[in-house]
Amino acid sequence: MSKTYGIALLGSGRMGIEHARNLLGLAHARVVAVADPLQTARDAAQALTRAERSYADPEAAIADPNVDAVVIVTPTNTHADLIEAAAHAGKAVFCEKPIALTLERTERCLAAIERAGVPFQIGFQRRHDPAYARAKEKLAAGEVGRIDQFRAVGRDPAPPSLDYLKVSGGQFLDQGVHDFDLARFMVGEVEEVMAWGAVRVDERIGELGDSDTATTMLRFKNGALGVIENSRQSVYGYDIVTEVFGEKGKLLVDETPKTGLRHYTAGAIPGGDGRIEVDHYRFFMDRFRDAYRLELEAFLHSLVAGTAPTPGPREALESLRLALAATLSFREGRPVKLSEVS
Amino acid sequence: MSKTYGIALLGSGRMGIEHARNLLGLAHARVVAVADPLQTARDAAQALTRAERSYADPEAAIADPNVDAVVIVTPTNTHADLIEAAAHAGKAVFCEKPIALTLERTERCLAAIERAGVPFQIGFQRRHDPAYARAKEKLAAGEVGRIDQFRAVGRDPAPPSLDYLKVSGGQFLDQGVHDFDLARFMVGEVEEVMAWGAVRVDERIGELGDSDTATTMLRFKNGALGVIENSRQSVYGYDIVTEVFGEKGKLLVDETPKTGLRHYTAGAIPGGDGRIEVDHYRFFMDRFRDAYRLELEAFLHSLVAGTAPTPGPREALESLRLALAATLSFREGRPVKLSEVS
Amino acid sequence: MSKTYGIALLGSGRMGIEHARNLLGLAHARVVAVADPLQTARDAAQALTRAERSYADPEAAIADPNVDAVVIVTPTNTHADLIEAAAHAGKAVFCEKPIALTLERTERCLAAIERAGVPFQIGFQRRHDPAYARAKEKLAAGEVGRIDQFRAVGRDPAPPSLDYLKVSGGQFLDQGVHDFDLARFMVGEVEEVMAWGAVRVDERIGELGDSDTATTMLRFKNGALGVIENSRQSVYGYDIVTEVFGEKGKLLVDETPKTGLRHYTAGAIPGGDGRIEVDHYRFFMDRFRDAYRLELEAFLHSLVAGTAPTPGPREALESLRLALAATLSFREGRPVKLSEVS
Amino acid sequence: MSKTYGIALLGSGRMGIEHARNLLGLAHARVVAVADPLQTARDAAQALTRAERSYADPEAAIADPNVDAVVIVTPTNTHADLIEAAAHAGKAVFCEKPIALTLERTERCLAAIERAGVPFQIGFQRRHDPAYARAKEKLAAGEVGRIDQFRAVGRDPAPPSLDYLKVSGGQFLDQGVHDFDLARFMVGEVEEVMAWGAVRVDERIGELGDSDTATTMLRFKNGALGVIENSRQSVYGYDIVTEVFGEKGKLLVDETPKTGLRHYTAGAIPGGDGRIEVDHYRFFMDRFRDAYRLELEAFLHSLVAGTAPTPGPREALESLRLALAATLSFREGRPVKLSEVS
Repeated sequence: MSKTYGIALLGSGRMGIEHARNLLGLAHARVVAVADPLQTARDAAQALTRAERSYADPEAAIADPNVDAVVIVTPTNTHADLIEAAAHAGKAVFCEKPIALTLERTERCLAAIERAGVPFQIGFQRRHDPAYARAKEKLAAGEVGRIDQFRAVGRDPAPPSLDYLKVSGGQFLDQGVHDFDLARFMVGEVEEVMAWGAVRVDERIGELGDSDTATTMLRFKNGALGVIENSRQSVYGYDIVTEVFGEKGKLLVDETPKTGLRHYTAGAIPGGDGRIEVDHYRFFMDRFRDAYRLELEAFLHSLVAGTAPTPGPREALESLRLALAATLSFREGRPVKLSEVS
Repeated sequence: MSKTYGIALLGSGRMGIEHARNLLGLAHARVVAVADPLQTARDAAQALTRAERSYADPEAAIADPNVDAVVIVTPTNTHADLIEAAAHAGKAVFCEKPIALTLERTERCLAAIERAGVPFQIGFQRRHDPAYARAKEKLAAGEVGRIDQFRAVGRDPAPPSLDYLKVSGGQFLDQGVHDFDLARFMVGEVEEVMAWGAVRVDERIGELGDSDTATTMLRFKNGALGVIENSRQSVYGYDIVTEVFGEKGKLLVDETPKTGLRHYTAGAIPGGDGRIEVDHYRFFMDRFRDAYRLELEAFLHSLVAGTAPTPGPREALESLRLALAATLSFREGRPVKLSEVS
Repeated sequence: MSKTYGIALLGSGRMGIEHARNLLGLAHARVVAVADPLQTARDAAQALTRAERSYADPEAAIADPNVDAVVIVTPTNTHADLIEAAAHAGKAVFCEKPIALTLERTERCLAAIERAGVPFQIGFQRRHDPAYARAKEKLAAGEVGRIDQFRAVGRDPAPPSLDYLKVSGGQFLDQGVHDFDLARFMVGEVEEVMAWGAVRVDERIGELGDSDTATTMLRFKNGALGVIENSRQSVYGYDIVTEVFGEKGKLLVDETPKTGLRHYTAGAIPGGDGRIEVDHYRFFMDRFRDAYRLELEAFLHSLVAGTAPTPGPREALESLRLALAATLSFREGRPVKLSEVS
Repeated sequence: MSKTYGIALLGSGRMGIEHARNLLGLAHARVVAVADPLQTARDAAQALTRAERSYADPEAAIADPNVDAVVIVTPTNTHADLIEAAAHAGKAVFCEKPIALTLERTERCLAAIERAGVPFQIGFQRRHDPAYARAKEKLAAGEVGRIDQFRAVGRDPAPPSLDYLKVSGGQFLDQGVHDFDLARFMVGEVEEVMAWGAVRVDERIGELGDSDTATTMLRFKNGALGVIENSRQSVYGYDIVTEVFGEKGKLLVDETPKTGLRHYTAGAIPGGDGRIEVDHYRFFMDRFRDAYRLELEAFLHSLVAGTAPTPGPREALESLRLALAATLSFREGRPVKLSEVS
């Protein structure tokens, strides 16, 4: 029988608990340690996972000899340090995005991973969503042929807190980065971007120098054109759409309704047309529940098979570069080549 | 250049005007006479069609020597007599359903058509709807293979007037007959039916001995099973669905939304799921606008080509027989073989 | 902190493993024992669940003092005995459908549950599917008003083995029972049924006196009419649809596509219409993954809250009665009242 | 009874015939003259419309004293002259887009219309499509609130001939202009554009200095952001989508399938997932059949009511300005303000 990997769950907030549940269902994983500075949080995680050890300090969990791999779900500003600590300890790493908000810090961290030779996976879960994975499969099989246009929409139900926004790196880094990663996943490397941002939802976001509404054009190295639309506030819920158009057709990963329930009712006007109503997801975990499960399954499969997990270090770095280029374009009101950002 | 057919439009109510408009767009048709006992109605029809002649009496229009074909859109109880008059005069006939409410009267009328050898088409427009026609094409090409199950839904927004209902022949003859025709169109002849009716919408309909809600099972001669659901009141609008299931797959002619517009809004609960709203057809003419145009186009094509129009006399007769069998089953609470109804 | 329930998983086939995974994610459940006569199966279940004990004999697992509740996923013909054993031992019971294939055996088993006063839940998972649960919520809130018509479709991708079919109780008991349960869940008690079956897919099924294709009409006690369509072979996959139509509108729990991916391609005819392709579920676990998780979550919630789990014993009994009535109607070719089946 | 307007149909190609059919169904219109230099074409139009007069020269038709209004469906380079001739003759004008390919010629023509005081409507039919009209109604009623983002897709099945492309004004003027008009219709005036074009489909299009694939960003005067995607070749058919996102939700005018028919089949892999197939429109007249009918209906209503037809002269001019700005941006690789184009 193949090995079971001892996992340390670093961070046990809402997303940490989601990962914990998913780890519990995996035959080759066993959560042996949890870490969170907040006692009630780590107690809850320990009760759920039945981990033998519980630590306030994530570095102590990393050092635990029963730990083979770490799943990092801590605040963003701790990611790079924890990754490096895990790499130095020879532990495999799964980390929520981003590694860091600068290229320099990200590159330094990736160098540590490379030197240590530890497996590394970044939490761009959409790549493991069944719809995106199937789209990728079709692209790889040549079913679209030459790609001509790419489109993505990423809209969240409501903006994060201003405190969070201040340290988030801005809309392109914090929100757009998922869509930039998809652009690379689906189409390939980007040559140039042109981004416009606007402040529509909350003036205070503008006062931070940030945008809450953004539209970004991409020119890919293979000649295809792309566009990404982001908004911090979508009152109908979480709005995620991706489209790849080309020589032989189009792949559209559309919003799925929350369930298959359709409600037919009389409309507002007596004697007038009726109406069909469908519930729409508000919450990203509803939309990507399967993806969160499958990305960890894939991580474990890679450990067992001895292959490189994906998306890996390069994906973390290049999506950040794209987000930084878009931010620069937004600030300077001009097209920016990726080669300018290094 | 091929011949242009002089058409007499008999009846210029709402449906008559719809047919008039559609005739105007046909290269081989020219409305040369209109007939309606109501002066304002026939004046409106004449103004629209620029017909040379206008008659109070439909028989006079039939006799008009410039008339090659009649389109009968008069009250149901006049259909058989007008068809016979047209047949005797050697005029081609397009007639709204039904010919009559009894087999005897219908058969007598069909005998007159046959003797006269005039082309005859019955107004089961759904057969000419692009979705149904495409489904039929696929069935004919064997894309479903052996058919195992058939399903149809027919629901109207609101019941007709009680005065109409009294002379309508009942729910199975008046409403269900469209679905019975589709069953024969899609699957083939029926061996046996079992129908249950209920009074849910209006007690006064029950007092007429009629139902307003009905579910009917069909056993086809080829062994397939079927079911038809009818209701006289669907508050969200006109609800028409047909499904054919078999060896190699399923064809579903689903409701189409009124337009391609989807409206995404916040839901009823603040912070809860959003909602997608789509308008639903209330009105049957919105749903079958193309079908009404195409059935007349097909009628004219048949005249020009010298082929038998379809659906023809047999379709009128056999759908009536099915409706009568269902009515008998509903009244006696038992399965009824079609062979009992003659 | 509230109690954690020790669970014995009885049966570790494919469905047992699915339940095991779902139990792992529940804070109040802990799988403490697994049982399966097949060593490799129980070893796999033990490795996944990290249960302390593993038994060949399910009765031994029931007797295990650390076991508070049993999850029964063993072959159908063992259900009633195991339920009774668990009831006698004072253990809560979750059992896959059915309890037994006769009313007598089912009633005897339910009497044992009642005498012992143990919580009991039957595995009609669809009731916990988010779409069905939301539909029920809307029905309970009066959003449809008076119900007039009910419809369900239940089609499996391919028939089970003939060996299984011989002991399955027939299509109505084995397959239709899920839809009969939904009819009661959505609309209420049934007064009378009329069922037609046919052999379309495999002659050998007919030689067993069974059908592979069936259409059943229901007349509910509240006056509504219903229909259920079943087939043992749907080449496009698992086809589950439910519809409730009434005074204020319609609820349709439609098939959901497998993912939100739509593939637009050129059609078969050069220069002709294009085509949109969507993947369709083949496998019931893909369709009801959430429901399987949520039914066990609900079971545990009931244990924690001290409320009666649902669907409970009566649901198991009355859906069986409906299936038996339909079987009788199919055999005798006549409407059957539920009161005849006791 | 109100007046019937004598119409001259100028141009009787495919689109002319479509307009002729639609005019035939309008109570207040009567085609009294047709004009086309090609004898067979004008004969066909005369036969269909039963117009009294047929002219080789459109100017002669304009001069016909029975003509109250002209419908111009001639080649693009004749539009401005014919509009001016009609204006001088005091005839109302409906003209297919565009008036001309330069601002100067367009402005001169509009000045003639204004001096003559004749009603003028430009053939941006999408504004009269039921889905777009309903979306506009909702926008006007404030159902979206503040608009934040706009998106449009316009893709044709295949590029026009190179001969046509040479005189078309380029992709932004010829194809994008419909989407630019929608942007103004839905959101309002535009401040600035940024356009990228690419040659993906046919190198010879690039040799003309034109693009066949284009993505354009818009910044509206009200602060909203927009994007338009165009392609000359969409193998699955005519792809037209528009989306307006804002404070209170989103309106999406999506592609509609060609009919409501869904075809469920076994998939490519035996035992694998099934597939649902839907036909997609190839042909723009299928998609906008209703819109072409309704735009002429609206034109006649305006004549009868004495109101200004819409979209009117300003819509023709400003959509052209937008297309010219996008062309300039594409050529110079920089954002272009609308104020630069005059």
